[in-house]
Amino acid sequence: MDHRLNRPLGANQVPRFGGPATMMRLPSQEDAHGLDACFVGVPFDIGTSNRPGARFGPRAIRAESSLLRPYNMATGAAPFDGLMVADIGDVPINPFNLAESIRIIETAYDDIMGHGCVPLTLGGDHTISVPILRAVSRRHGPVGLVHVDAHADVNDTMFGERLAHGTPFRRAVEEGLVAGKRVVQIGLRGTGYTAEEFDWPRSQGFRIVTAAECWYKSLGPLMAEVRDQLGAGPVHLSFDIDGLDPGCAPGTGTPEIGGLTASQGLEVIRGCRGLEIVGCDLVEVAPAYDHTGNTALLAANLLFEMLCVLPGVPYR
Amino acid sequence: MDHRLNRPLGANQVPRFGGPATMMRLPSQEDAHGLDACFVGVPFDIGTSNRPGARFGPRAIRAESSLLRPYNMATGAAPFDGLMVADIGDVPINPFNLAESIRIIETAYDDIMGHGCVPLTLGGDHTISVPILRAVSRRHGPVGLVHVDAHADVNDTMFGERLAHGTPFRRAVEEGLVAGKRVVQIGLRGTGYTAEEFDWPRSQGFRIVTAAECWYKSLGPLMAEVRDQLGAGPVHLSFDIDGLDPGCAPGTGTPEIGGLTASQGLEVIRGCRGLEIVGCDLVEVAPAYDHTGNTALLAANLLFEMLCVLPGVPYR
Amino acid sequence: MDHRLNRPLGANQVPRFGGPATMMRLPSQEDAHGLDACFVGVPFDIGTSNRPGARFGPRAIRAESSLLRPYNMATGAAPFDGLMVADIGDVPINPFNLAESIRIIETAYDDIMGHGCVPLTLGGDHTISVPILRAVSRRHGPVGLVHVDAHADVNDTMFGERLAHGTPFRRAVEEGLVAGKRVVQIGLRGTGYTAEEFDWPRSQGFRIVTAAECWYKSLGPLMAEVRDQLGAGPVHLSFDIDGLDPGCAPGTGTPEIGGLTASQGLEVIRGCRGLEIVGCDLVEVAPAYDHTGNTALLAANLLFEMLCVLPGVPYR
Amino acid sequence: MDHRLNRPLGANQVPRFGGPATMMRLPSQEDAHGLDACFVGVPFDIGTSNRPGARFGPRAIRAESSLLRPYNMATGAAPFDGLMVADIGDVPINPFNLAESIRIIETAYDDIMGHGCVPLTLGGDHTISVPILRAVSRRHGPVGLVHVDAHADVNDTMFGERLAHGTPFRRAVEEGLVAGKRVVQIGLRGTGYTAEEFDWPRSQGFRIVTAAECWYKSLGPLMAEVRDQLGAGPVHLSFDIDGLDPGCAPGTGTPEIGGLTASQGLEVIRGCRGLEIVGCDLVEVAPAYDHTGNTALLAANLLFEMLCVLPGVPYR
Amino acid sequence: MDHRLNRPLGANQVPRFGGPATMMRLPSQEDAHGLDACFVGVPFDIGTSNRPGARFGPRAIRAESSLLRPYNMATGAAPFDGLMVADIGDVPINPFNLAESIRIIETAYDDIMGHGCVPLTLGGDHTISVPILRAVSRRHGPVGLVHVDAHADVNDTMFGERLAHGTPFRRAVEEGLVAGKRVVQIGLRGTGYTAEEFDWPRSQGFRIVTAAECWYKSLGPLMAEVRDQLGAGPVHLSFDIDGLDPGCAPGTGTPEIGGLTASQGLEVIRGCRGLEIVGCDLVEVAPAYDHTGNTALLAANLLFEMLCVLPGVPYR
Amino acid sequence: MDHRLNRPLGANQVPRFGGPATMMRLPSQEDAHGLDACFVGVPFDIGTSNRPGARFGPRAIRAESSLLRPYNMATGAAPFDGLMVADIGDVPINPFNLAESIRIIETAYDDIMGHGCVPLTLGGDHTISVPILRAVSRRHGPVGLVHVDAHADVNDTMFGERLAHGTPFRRAVEEGLVAGKRVVQIGLRGTGYTAEEFDWPRSQGFRIVTAAECWYKSLGPLMAEVRDQLGAGPVHLSFDIDGLDPGCAPGTGTPEIGGLTASQGLEVIRGCRGLEIVGCDLVEVAPAYDHTGNTALLAANLLFEMLCVLPGVPYR
Repeated sequence: MDHRLNRPLGANQVPRFGGPATMMRLPSQEDAHGLDACFVGVPFDIGTSNRPGARFGPRAIRAESSLLRPYNMATGAAPFDGLMVADIGDVPINPFNLAESIRIIETAYDDIMGHGCVPLTLGGDHTISVPILRAVSRRHGPVGLVHVDAHADVNDTMFGERLAHGTPFRRAVEEGLVAGKRVVQIGLRGTGYTAEEFDWPRSQGFRIVTAAECWYKSLGPLMAEVRDQLGAGPVHLSFDIDGLDPGCAPGTGTPEIGGLTASQGLEVIRGCRGLEIVGCDLVEVAPAYDHTGNTALLAANLLFEMLCVLPGVPYR
Repeated sequence: MDHRLNRPLGANQVPRFGGPATMMRLPSQEDAHGLDACFVGVPFDIGTSNRPGARFGPRAIRAESSLLRPYNMATGAAPFDGLMVADIGDVPINPFNLAESIRIIETAYDDIMGHGCVPLTLGGDHTISVPILRAVSRRHGPVGLVHVDAHADVNDTMFGERLAHGTPFRRAVEEGLVAGKRVVQIGLRGTGYTAEEFDWPRSQGFRIVTAAECWYKSLGPLMAEVRDQLGAGPVHLSFDIDGLDPGCAPGTGTPEIGGLTASQGLEVIRGCRGLEIVGCDLVEVAPAYDHTGNTALLAANLLFEMLCVLPGVPYR
Repeated sequence: MDHRLNRPLGANQVPRFGGPATMMRLPSQEDAHGLDACFVGVPFDIGTSNRPGARFGPRAIRAESSLLRPYNMATGAAPFDGLMVADIGDVPINPFNLAESIRIIETAYDDIMGHGCVPLTLGGDHTISVPILRAVSRRHGPVGLVHVDAHADVNDTMFGERLAHGTPFRRAVEEGLVAGKRVVQIGLRGTGYTAEEFDWPRSQGFRIVTAAECWYKSLGPLMAEVRDQLGAGPVHLSFDIDGLDPGCAPGTGTPEIGGLTASQGLEVIRGCRGLEIVGCDLVEVAPAYDHTGNTALLAANLLFEMLCVLPGVPYR
Repeated sequence: MDHRLNRPLGANQVPRFGGPATMMRLPSQEDAHGLDACFVGVPFDIGTSNRPGARFGPRAIRAESSLLRPYNMATGAAPFDGLMVADIGDVPINPFNLAESIRIIETAYDDIMGHGCVPLTLGGDHTISVPILRAVSRRHGPVGLVHVDAHADVNDTMFGERLAHGTPFRRAVEEGLVAGKRVVQIGLRGTGYTAEEFDWPRSQGFRIVTAAECWYKSLGPLMAEVRDQLGAGPVHLSFDIDGLDPGCAPGTGTPEIGGLTASQGLEVIRGCRGLEIVGCDLVEVAPAYDHTGNTALLAANLLFEMLCVLPGVPYR
Repeated sequence: MDHRLNRPLGANQVPRFGGPATMMRLPSQEDAHGLDACFVGVPFDIGTSNRPGARFGPRAIRAESSLLRPYNMATGAAPFDGLMVADIGDVPINPFNLAESIRIIETAYDDIMGHGCVPLTLGGDHTISVPILRAVSRRHGPVGLVHVDAHADVNDTMFGERLAHGTPFRRAVEEGLVAGKRVVQIGLRGTGYTAEEFDWPRSQGFRIVTAAECWYKSLGPLMAEVRDQLGAGPVHLSFDIDGLDPGCAPGTGTPEIGGLTASQGLEVIRGCRGLEIVGCDLVEVAPAYDHTGNTALLAANLLFEMLCVLPGVPYR
Repeated sequence: MDHRLNRPLGANQVPRFGGPATMMRLPSQEDAHGLDACFVGVPFDIGTSNRPGARFGPRAIRAESSLLRPYNMATGAAPFDGLMVADIGDVPINPFNLAESIRIIETAYDDIMGHGCVPLTLGGDHTISVPILRAVSRRHGPVGLVHVDAHADVNDTMFGERLAHGTPFRRAVEEGLVAGKRVVQIGLRGTGYTAEEFDWPRSQGFRIVTAAECWYKSLGPLMAEVRDQLGAGPVHLSFDIDGLDPGCAPGTGTPEIGGLTASQGLEVIRGCRGLEIVGCDLVEVAPAYDHTGNTALLAANLLFEMLCVLPGVPYR
């Protein structure tokens, strides 16, 4: 192991219930300087239409991440043997002003991207994918997108507003942040405002994979197709925890029944290995509805799995 | 869309966390006059043998139903484009007198049936299926029954009483409310008072589908068989939320491990499309054990899915 | 009793766990026409700086209010024997736009005031007192204010914003909505951004009663002084549930230790009898932190007590 | 100490989180034979008008009672040094039949009384005081009553029924189970169905002590008056946990704000020392609303304090 | 049925929410004399590295076990028709001294084994498998092991200590308590301290079945292989509730995402039928994180299923 | 203000729900070098006899402390205007070895004391006061002690062990860590193992103030007496959160009814102003029983109040 690389604080050094409350108890630093990847929090939830509370997502995910160990036993990934990773803290959003917060987030991510660092975002509600994708695409051009979610999030407006947690991927298309043919949305389900809600993303070239298409089976084959679809070129991975079933992820603001299992969530992320991942976000964890902390723990694990599929991670 | 038909209050008119606490924020009315289908609550739980609290089921289901939108994205059903639907409130049961409550419920459902309306019941414990089926069969004759449950609910007596939440389908057979050969019970499992507990329903012609027969697979094929079994003629759909696994439906009074998944619950209901559904009930949601509200939300979704398979619903 | 007046639905008509989820199970109507007083919800929480969720306050308060009966046993007040009261539902705020929401609330309250009706508001975070007071003072001129709270809520800005739940009474002074010498703030405590935080309200003529001044004793004598201070003329009563101790009111967003007891809260409201109350609000109930519902129940009781001290209420 | 007397299992013999789940980890026995006092459970809640769940009261109180030690540090009472005490288990009520359950309870208490044993009852809802008082008065004649409660529980009927948890003390008077002039009701408050609700008990000679009369002060002086009022002769102590404030006793079915503090509850019971207590009940603990177990723990402590004031208890 | 055999208290004798809080409401006795199998609690959790609380596991499992009935409807097992079973209470561990507690447990299990009784253990954290296996192997020689868990629990030390809940099976091998080639570990997953963590158990001959190998399918075929692998000879079954997914078993101290379903857990235990089971433990239920009690209920069911596969159980 | 002194991160710089999870969002550092006072966590709970979980106390207290602002509005204290304060993280205890952990804690506090820094400890169970007092007295000699608690914690042994959370002050006397005549214990109550439990501390010169002596009144006068009793010379302040009533501090492991109010807790600490405080600990917060986080918030406030009474704090 390269001793110059950061490593999570070990459970035999300080017990899991102690130590710094950073992601995986990694060292923290002010910005992304010198990092291959960073964990970064966006404690923002004023784009939320139903149950709020995702503002506490980063804090809760970090707290539960203390249970994580540095090696991925299922895949052999050893991210800390190859990448320099730290927790760079939270973006200081303005809790009373959505537009201003979006601007603040965008600036913060421009800075991260400027360091050539891959951001692994602890959300926050899904609105934040817009400023994140703006910064990501400013550096990488329009990106491919692997999007796990119960909802397509392609509304034109909500209450007349163009930025809210149900609109990010409409904006991403309009602003050219994503390449429509290199987008897949996995886990869609539930009720809709119109019968035609999934037509628009399809018209943009998105592949839509509904939850019902996923039930009772491995998503390994799907992800092989996704890798073919997305091919070479930069990819962003946006994972809304409500893509998973409320049975395993109760702590979220807009739960929809009949979702993916946690194992399918793992397969989607593990199936991204080989793609050129340039950014990731995990959004919509609402701790006030997560009485055991297990949704935050699930999110922490998924963020670790995202780290494991970044380019450059060694496997053992 | 027919503007004379009721529609749920839209999320862009009043936010989901506001507005009237009716089912799906539909208009309410005093009785079933002029309705094709109605949502109706039966806040009754004094037939409960273990954890009580289903009396608060209707209130909780209505509260969480505010998240529902009017179109079924998975099936294309557009119930509010074809049916007149409202919430007619709660049956005023007597909380101290089981027998009297049964009588009150029966009278209330006779009134609903008299309007030619299909009741979609928000329970309440499973005892209520007896008075509901009495009213339903009074109008339609002995009905077929799709019954999702962990328990067969065919005890002869409980504590010497003939009416309790473990006896409704014994009574239904004895009173000729259901046609035994047109009954299927799906999801049965758990422990029993005798080894022969499932023999009696089988002797009445019921098809018994245990939970173990359902594990790890789609129930689509089963439902094709069920449609064949039940054929033409009126059918009642009785869905005990404990038919589903406690992992997705924790908020119930008699949970049994190893149950159906939420997706299987969806498949059962969706698989009833084409049957002549004349009544539905969703029972045994106990909000005091549903700390996130997600069991009530699940129930609200299942009730919406029931609405979607009623005769006359247009599909897009 | 005057049979033309609305009455809450009786517990021996429909059990408490059933019936309409309006405040006290009163009749609902669209606007304040013909009402002496109305219960009205403002499901708004995007002015919140810490734990969100007050958007669900109105729904939770209404649900728990089903336990209330129509007579006040402690004071003999019989509000429904003298006033016409109804629940007029929720103000349809915009969940993504604070400024727009404030405008919507203001318009809604102008309408209520236009009917000569006293609004009893189910909040919502404390930001809403600004638009409410604008409408109230537009009709009545600058009002006196009885303000129960842990916090003075007189910040100039928060994150640079002038409207948020920590600024309403600074705005109220600046805009001439309240008459400084007719303002009392009761229950203030906790930590502050500066040592001088209470100087500004004092400089405006406010009487400040800290929580520590209230400990271990009846607030009856204080309220006699308050009645003297406020004298004749219109008064608004603004009750932040965090004025009470978290021991009795845990479900709120910015709890501060060492607060008033519930009995002191009752004494403050009961002590307003005789004042010319023209508006009331009960704010900052955050149901996601109120696992038993008892904070909402407390709030429902306090709102009922507010109704009991309105001018015109008969006492038995 | 008398080694023939039962003692609770010691915390240094088996840790508090182990051992038998009897009250205070005392020995259990089938009936009251040879006992001076017994703990007995009545897991009954079908007389409940609002939140149910008191059926689980006995189990929860016993579980939390494991924290109790055998000496009363505040009063010096050493009950196990002087009395033979055991846990005689639960009365096997019929969960579907209120009238039949009342009969079963009555028979069970006749048996206890027949052994000359003082029952300390773990309820259960307040309906059970009727059959308990019937058995108690059958042996002792009309008894005095110290009744702590938020509610007078003297309704004539509820939903037309004469036995429910809001009617027991009307029945007790009518049936001559209590001597009206030897009755005190402490802690009454809240809202009422009529303005005259407390007139009837007063007309029967009851002393009514409202919660508001108790606020902010010791109840020692009150209890001196109560001892004078009740004088010599048998007394029953009936303690509804909702007499205390929901802040300290959240886990109950009909909470009312502004109640007694836990310390006042202790003073009431301790103030009964010297009275001829012949029976006690602690009712209305609803564990489903008691997420920490602390309401059950409070109840367990109050039951121990009741034991400490029984005639014959030595003090050190 | 053999009337000399113990039977659980019936739900029509005493309601489920009453009666003794023994496992399945079976009779209790002091030791294992005369028993074929016993339920025994080990309220121990000071070997826990993350969330504590398994010390309350036995109490919680017993409380929820009251819902169990005596017959296994899925398999036809009728354990109480063939075996003499009782609850022998808890092992009195020392809560402050791990080493001393291990010694106490070992002695207690030597006594159980001395009576020729099969212990069914209600844990407690996984450390307890060491003293249990010592006693079991002292009587039966090195045993085969069916081990369900998220973790291999084969660390050499934790914080330098050789006995903790992450080390039991390393110790079991070193001490010759298990026969390596007759060991299977099912459900392993999650993150690890090194990439080679599963190499050591494999080097001892263990079969490792990761959770990922189990996803989306029946474990019936696996268990056929396991029965072949283990063949004749004594077998211990050690079931860590965290082998199951946190979605169905949230109340545990070291949850790992992507685990087995409850139905797979049932299949593993049912698949042990035919093996010579000589001991069983169910560990790591942490009630403080099990807000509904459903994890404890799951554990109670799994313990019943273990009883059902003991040698000598009749099937109907 | 002295700009060289650390200040908590401001709520208008980063919202309260973001930023570093240090105490009050202060800067962190590795050790106490250059500090006047430090917040330090001791995540230890293996000395706990009942409900465990205080190991998560430091993490929870820090999380909730984000709500604190730098000025004490009640007393005018401005600690950050005069003292250099930081969070120095957690002592890396050994979760499986009580004796070893005590040694580790002792060493850590020797280091803190060596820097001339006053430790403000976030516990952890009460066992930790022994190693803390050893280090404190090693520097300052036998100290005076202000001890708030429900329990005297002067057992000789528990389960034969000399170090556990019920024994620290027996050890402190025996080892000469405290000066008996300069000790006061406030809030004692509950049940005891013997009737003489409070005799031993009295025989050592301790002043015992039972909870019953505190009910319904200000503790200001008591604290004047305490200041007289303790006089000049170093004092340690040890505050067990269970000294307060479970109504305001539910999240603790050994709750006792009838405790101090939060306001009395504030008065005790504020009453220590003028004493020569050289060390403080706040122990026994068990977050798993603190579902709202309000007990941890209470603890955070009390720790801030302790900081405010340290020598050298300026008042405004």
